[in-house]
Amino acid sequence: MMAPSDRRVVFTPSGKRGAFAEGTSLLDAARRLGVDLDSVCGGRGICGRCQVDVAEGAFAKHALESREGHAGPWSPVEQRYVDKRGPLPPGRRLGCQTRICGDLVVDVPAESQVHRQIVLKRAEERVIAIDPVVRLHTVEVRQPDMSDPSSDFRRLQEALEGQWGVMGATADAAVVRTLQKALRAGGWTATVALRCDREVVAIYPGFVLAACGVAIDVGSTTIAAYLCDLATGETLASVGAMNPQIRFGEDLMSRVSYAMMNPGGDAELTDAVRRAIDALIGEAAAQAEVAREAIVELTLVGNPIMHHLALGLDPAELGGAPFALAIDGGFEVKARELGLAVAPGAYVYALPCIAGHVGADAAAVTLAEAPHESDELRLIVDVGTNAEIVYGDRRLCLAASSPTGPAFEGAQISCGQRAAPGAIERVRIDRATLEPRFKVIGCDLWSDEPGFAEATALSGVTGVCGSGIIETMAELFLAGVVSADGVLDGTLAARTARVEPVGRTFAYVLNEGPPRLLIYQTDVRAIQLAKAALYAGAKLLIERRGAPPDRITLAGAFGAQIDPVYAMALGMIPDCDLDRVTSAGNAAGTGARIALLNRAARAEIERVARAIEKVETAIEPDFQALFVAAMAIPHKTDAFPNLARRIDLPPAKASDDGGRRRSREARRRTPA
Amino acid sequence: MMAPSDRRVVFTPSGKRGAFAEGTSLLDAARRLGVDLDSVCGGRGICGRCQVDVAEGAFAKHALESREGHAGPWSPVEQRYVDKRGPLPPGRRLGCQTRICGDLVVDVPAESQVHRQIVLKRAEERVIAIDPVVRLHTVEVRQPDMSDPSSDFRRLQEALEGQWGVMGATADAAVVRTLQKALRAGGWTATVALRCDREVVAIYPGFVLAACGVAIDVGSTTIAAYLCDLATGETLASVGAMNPQIRFGEDLMSRVSYAMMNPGGDAELTDAVRRAIDALIGEAAAQAEVAREAIVELTLVGNPIMHHLALGLDPAELGGAPFALAIDGGFEVKARELGLAVAPGAYVYALPCIAGHVGADAAAVTLAEAPHESDELRLIVDVGTNAEIVYGDRRLCLAASSPTGPAFEGAQISCGQRAAPGAIERVRIDRATLEPRFKVIGCDLWSDEPGFAEATALSGVTGVCGSGIIETMAELFLAGVVSADGVLDGTLAARTARVEPVGRTFAYVLNEGPPRLLIYQTDVRAIQLAKAALYAGAKLLIERRGAPPDRITLAGAFGAQIDPVYAMALGMIPDCDLDRVTSAGNAAGTGARIALLNRAARAEIERVARAIEKVETAIEPDFQALFVAAMAIPHKTDAFPNLARRIDLPPAKASDDGGRRRSREARRRTPA
Repeated sequence: MMAPSDRRVVFTPSGKRGAFAEGTSLLDAARRLGVDLDSVCGGRGICGRCQVDVAEGAFAKHALESREGHAGPWSPVEQRYVDKRGPLPPGRRLGCQTRICGDLVVDVPAESQVHRQIVLKRAEERVIAIDPVVRLHTVEVRQPDMSDPSSDFRRLQEALEGQWGVMGATADAAVVRTLQKALRAGGWTATVALRCDREVVAIYPGFVLAACGVAIDVGSTTIAAYLCDLATGETLASVGAMNPQIRFGEDLMSRVSYAMMNPGGDAELTDAVRRAIDALIGEAAAQAEVAREAIVELTLVGNPIMHHLALGLDPAELGGAPFALAIDGGFEVKARELGLAVAPGAYVYALPCIAGHVGADAAAVTLAEAPHESDELRLIVDVGTNAEIVYGDRRLCLAASSPTGPAFEGAQISCGQRAAPGAIERVRIDRATLEPRFKVIGCDLWSDEPGFAEATALSGVTGVCGSGIIETMAELFLAGVVSADGVLDGTLAARTARVEPVGRTFAYVLNEGPPRLLIYQTDVRAIQLAKAALYAGAKLLIERRGAPPDRITLAGAFGAQIDPVYAMALGMIPDCDLDRVTSAGNAAGTGARIALLNRAARAEIERVARAIEKVETAIEPDFQALFVAAMAIPHKTDAFPNLARRIDLPPAKASDDGGRRRSREARRRTPA
Repeated sequence: MMAPSDRRVVFTPSGKRGAFAEGTSLLDAARRLGVDLDSVCGGRGICGRCQVDVAEGAFAKHALESREGHAGPWSPVEQRYVDKRGPLPPGRRLGCQTRICGDLVVDVPAESQVHRQIVLKRAEERVIAIDPVVRLHTVEVRQPDMSDPSSDFRRLQEALEGQWGVMGATADAAVVRTLQKALRAGGWTATVALRCDREVVAIYPGFVLAACGVAIDVGSTTIAAYLCDLATGETLASVGAMNPQIRFGEDLMSRVSYAMMNPGGDAELTDAVRRAIDALIGEAAAQAEVAREAIVELTLVGNPIMHHLALGLDPAELGGAPFALAIDGGFEVKARELGLAVAPGAYVYALPCIAGHVGADAAAVTLAEAPHESDELRLIVDVGTNAEIVYGDRRLCLAASSPTGPAFEGAQISCGQRAAPGAIERVRIDRATLEPRFKVIGCDLWSDEPGFAEATALSGVTGVCGSGIIETMAELFLAGVVSADGVLDGTLAARTARVEPVGRTFAYVLNEGPPRLLIYQTDVRAIQLAKAALYAGAKLLIERRGAPPDRITLAGAFGAQIDPVYAMALGMIPDCDLDRVTSAGNAAGTGARIALLNRAARAEIERVARAIEKVETAIEPDFQALFVAAMAIPHKTDAFPNLARRIDLPPAKASDDGGRRRSREARRRTPA
């Protein structure tokens, strides 16, 4: 009941309102009303997180007059704050120091809300509420007293209960180990990092305002780590390194073989990746100038084998059918158990795996791209040694992986190499002369432009990287050098020296060199196999849903380098409006960051990962036929009307599948 | 509702009854009624834990006739069981294989009850219900299937839910690491050790019937470990070893000093004690012929410094006032984090500490002796470097520690030594001749009996251990060699060569030797200080409660060696009916075993430890006066009527405290 002396306070933007006795602080009023107003220092005027704007004027809507004077005089604590931290905007006050003296309308600016929202950059921008599992609370702890013996931790629990309403806080031995020194070093004021409103994962002396988290994306080739401020969501440092497991095997299966053939091999692989992650954490912390101990939470994504190895689980079962995962749900483990030097009680949250070949990286991509919230049918492809494919919309999502092999990454291709300075990444072949021109990584000039030789003198032209291979193959097809069936046309040797015989087949000379770079018939076949696997996997899911994609997203670092036109011309992906074929960059890393910053996202992706319908290409009876049809460039039977509007496709040749032959026009009218 | 075809079944001793369709197994019927009937194998006729006795006859009380024939025919599975395990008693059946065919009265024998009770041997025998936190469940797990990818752990969860009603089982990475191999090695049958009905702490291939636990008592001098069968409560092995921390300091405070003076010293102490515990676990497992992996739960007790060091907590704060514990509640930590090689997910539960000087060992003694459930006022004394004292009854318990120092353990005494062969442990001094006789450890003869010299030729007579020192001092007092004030009477040197001058004081020759063993005036003083601290601590608590003890219990291995008559004659403990002064043996170890075997005991001792009123002797204004009065032998003012009925006390000498002097008789009538 409102007493006659009570003052009315309305908080915006929430609209929450109440009546309070004069002298109540705005922070207390906000807490009683459940208004989302941040505070780390607990009302001591130190952290500045509870800043509010006091409105001036008559508010008919709220039937009250708000005056700055109704918020009481400027306090010495506020003065101390601005002396130290700089001036506040006009009308801005520290909520904990402002006493209600009259009716007030008080706005809580976005930066003072605990659950403020940020926009994470990605293909489809997604708005994320900042709500990490770990939050900081500063407490004053009662000193020990011989006449009333109770432990330091019990008194910390009492402080958390009395000052923050946190009941029955827990801590493990590693955290308790730091407790006594922290309390004394801080003069019995300490800041605790509290996880899920229950577990203390770190204790710092005195006031601490920043807690950080790290999102880790373990790829088979590279490992990326993003260090984020858990309060603002800001990414303070992004670092990456090669996955040192490469020394045990270039591709995933050779690493699993290593683990299976060598006693303790899985532990070696685990140890290598953990050391690399720990080094990256150190690098990110140094870059962002934060202490390792300030890192209170981590998330981890990776394909099933990387996921299992990082968690110390033997990947042997993932090396063969039926590809049984040890665990598939979201999984928490203490960071220290992974050998990561961060806050003593910090956890690593590994995102769920979807299936034996569709890992936590695909789950993270799904979380970032949110096809399960989309009205459009979305095809999301993460290109790697295994292509992980998610297809669907808010009604149903499907997932599959398809064994593309490492051809797209330059392996198995005679002149293939990793993306590095000197690698050819862009290729054009003149339709008339069949002469090539190209760009190499580290130089903006085309190879036929003046100065190219000088500009690439240092790196040289060393080979062809993944995106270059795709462009080469697509251009060879578009120029008529390679047929739709993937045959290098030997008759062209008569027209150009670029085509030359090699044994019973022919090769295309991409670079006269040195080094001389040739595209052999076997290279074309390798790319055909890889792209057919990818296409067939996607097609399987599309047929399941019975409708073509409205939008295609290429995820992964490699996906970011691919030109969608060439990917489609080669027949890696099905036809689609090319304006709606985009790269999502490292969407797995984005998903890991989302799970780091928002606790509800973890429950969301665990639910979605289970709800996704898994399609195992290896046992699908239709897959083989789809695969064979996808061997053709771009495809044996599927039409590419959108692609045809953008580029000139070579004239259709006679197919050997006479029974199903339809005219090109007919196919255009009825896309698959 | 009972269908016409349903049969009535009554289970005894619980009296639970119900109606069941014909063909229902007795195990299922028992489960539906909530009857306490054990099963590990889940109804496969393998474990034999669900044995029941089928009654024969008319039961007017239950209004039904029970016939053995109503339990259906002997099944092939039962036959297989008895072929393998030997015959069952008459009328005994396997509950899981017995089908209800008519009305039945079924008795569940004690050994088939999950919560069967056992009697733990101790001073006051206590009946403990066996209800450990970890139980075994055998499950059949669905095999992986590519068309429905789900992880091995998810299918294990499903099996636990479907076959045991366990919802949402969890496991940490160390346990999951063993999952895939265990499931395959057991042909998709596995036995899981489930903790608190939720967390899987071990997974074994196939059927496993025995799970073990270890109770650990870390004393400053010795460490004891008890390996128990968690299903039967039986102690399968008891082992002990010296605490290797002794090399860092004989007594507690010197170890704390070591930790404080040497960087990393606390970690060294922690490492030493953990290695010793792990070695003891290995020894106990070998003795009991069980695998380390079969150990699924541990409990730990010790004084606050031992407790903290074992958990890896720096004991520095316990080295000085205000003696702040880091933690005082019951505390759980993974055994592997303490470097203990047992089941991968096993926990160590450390019992709560009561106060900075009254540790988890005192809590365990309290749990074992249960003064909080007693109608009598009980004084429980654990004698060590610090005496830990608990005093009270079901109304209120008090606890204190008193700094006795190591004199009782033979340190600080010129001829003192640890209890070992050759140490004098029993002493008698002739009241007339003042000649001593004694027994040494390892020989049953008194020193004045024929054959003593031969029997002790190997060990020799090397010194005096704790109990021998107490008897020597008490006998010297009773023989009049030492006065009530603790003065060695030099005038006796005229009567016997056993008393000889040493500088300005005198000594008593306990053994002419070699080695020559003398009791010096300084030795008497050291014992006076130690016993006065113990007595004064107990007295403080007695005065708080305002009533003398009905019963005194000497806990600890040392307490077991002390003759209560001499302890009382020396004035270590207050007067009490000597038939009610007993030793509890290693009551701390017993308490640790109780906490291992019964989960409710953990909640009980956590509640009791907090409810105990702590008395800090160091800040009690009365303590100093109580201490000074207790310096006299047996005491300056307190009467010992019970003691006087048993032995002849020397005539009272004039006290220097004239004002408070009362006649011996008067004091006898009004015991303190």
